[in-house]
Amino acid sequence: MVAAGIVSAPAEVRAAARAGSFTGLTTGLAPGFVQVNLVILPAKYATDFVAFCNANAGACPVLGLGEAGDPSLPGLGRNIDVRADCPSYWIHRDGRYAATAANIEAVWQDDFVSVAIGCWFSMEDALLSAGVRLRHLEEGIQGPLMRTNRPTSAVGVFGGPLVVSMRPFAKEQVATVRAVTSRFPRVHGAPVHEGDPARLGISGFDHPDFGEPMSVRPGEVPLYWGCGLTAMAALERARIPLFITHGAGSMLVTDMRNSELEERAS
Amino acid sequence: MVAAGIVSAPAEVRAAARAGSFTGLTTGLAPGFVQVNLVILPAKYATDFVAFCNANAGACPVLGLGEAGDPSLPGLGRNIDVRADCPSYWIHRDGRYAATAANIEAVWQDDFVSVAIGCWFSMEDALLSAGVRLRHLEEGIQGPLMRTNRPTSAVGVFGGPLVVSMRPFAKEQVATVRAVTSRFPRVHGAPVHEGDPARLGISGFDHPDFGEPMSVRPGEVPLYWGCGLTAMAALERARIPLFITHGAGSMLVTDMRNSELEERAS
Repeated sequence: MVAAGIVSAPAEVRAAARAGSFTGLTTGLAPGFVQVNLVILPAKYATDFVAFCNANAGACPVLGLGEAGDPSLPGLGRNIDVRADCPSYWIHRDGRYAATAANIEAVWQDDFVSVAIGCWFSMEDALLSAGVRLRHLEEGIQGPLMRTNRPTSAVGVFGGPLVVSMRPFAKEQVATVRAVTSRFPRVHGAPVHEGDPARLGISGFDHPDFGEPMSVRPGEVPLYWGCGLTAMAALERARIPLFITHGAGSMLVTDMRNSELEERAS
Repeated sequence: MVAAGIVSAPAEVRAAARAGSFTGLTTGLAPGFVQVNLVILPAKYATDFVAFCNANAGACPVLGLGEAGDPSLPGLGRNIDVRADCPSYWIHRDGRYAATAANIEAVWQDDFVSVAIGCWFSMEDALLSAGVRLRHLEEGIQGPLMRTNRPTSAVGVFGGPLVVSMRPFAKEQVATVRAVTSRFPRVHGAPVHEGDPARLGISGFDHPDFGEPMSVRPGEVPLYWGCGLTAMAALERARIPLFITHGAGSMLVTDMRNSELEERAS
């Protein structure tokens, strides 16, 4: 049985999600293992969508890509079934949220392609190991996520603004944060901006577009990373008839270790 | 431990949600007990919002109302804490979805008022007992939910279209469905319309605004009920700075029995 906060293996989390006995948030589950954003969409849109992600790989790094109609993702884990292995799913029609479901077997189509997009969380182990204080973790929040005035590189119907996450760090830890995160290019890598939010067209952190407000304290510096919500925003904006994502906070837990995403100087 | 589909007591579901060990969907849990939609908003908006619900009570029946700053709902259950007893919450800022959280203790404000709104599910036991076939239950879906061309009665900033649910029934069971549901005025009661969707400004059931598509088979008649999403749509439309709801499918489970909502001829 899976419960939030309890150490568990990735396959155990997926099995409980598949059985329908776990439909909750994956935060804190299977520590050390990569959790991914999942997007499932018809093949006719998938080529452009994946090209859009690749053209904006800092924000939307593709960690796994399924064959059309094939619900497995062998590169990310043994026996993954993307139709049921997320604890919950959000179904979007015509670009808008339409429903939450525990699995999507009933709506699965032979032309569905699944795309796994990396998440900032995969860098947290390495930052903590390097002695960096992660205040958003201490507060139990994701932190603020905001649309910027920076355009993405558009591909076909997919485009729109870059969405960033902001996290505050003590001034003396910024160099460490830059050094550590730049070794993880497949899960957002180095920050895209440091300091003044106005340079990104952001007025502040009290009313973020997504996530929670967070203040920058004296002695702290705000750092910004491209965020996978850039892909979600592009999907909504494109108003394609049907796409499916993991339910917020209910991510796909893979068999890949966060440490495997680290690129070491050889 | 709570798992979807396992019989459990309402207090057990709430305790697991409060402990953070259950963050999933409440479908099928605590059978026989009332599950409610929860809306939490600042007191300055609550008076008009509750008046709006009462003015449109067929769609938005208020089953419980908290005092400002008080997270309990003694009328609905012992020791309820609305800050943590839903398995998950959706936080909305400026009328838009912003975040999912397992509890809202960190964002709770002294001026927050909680409003519990009844749900169609509470009529399902009585319909099944009356021998009515509920095809949406057999298919494991909620069915289609759609904005109509019927306006609600506006109060202050709250207004907008009536949102309805549609469910198909065998022609020969329609009279029974009407008789049973009309005895439950506090959870939507009798249907607001029967037959042609065009009369409500609805083009069909293939692309609903929320929920899942559903076909009406030969020999079936579509019936329509006012839906609690009418209140959610009014909250979004009003773009108030902050309001919180239960996460979709992660409702507040009360100690009230569905049968208590039935009004019997005396």
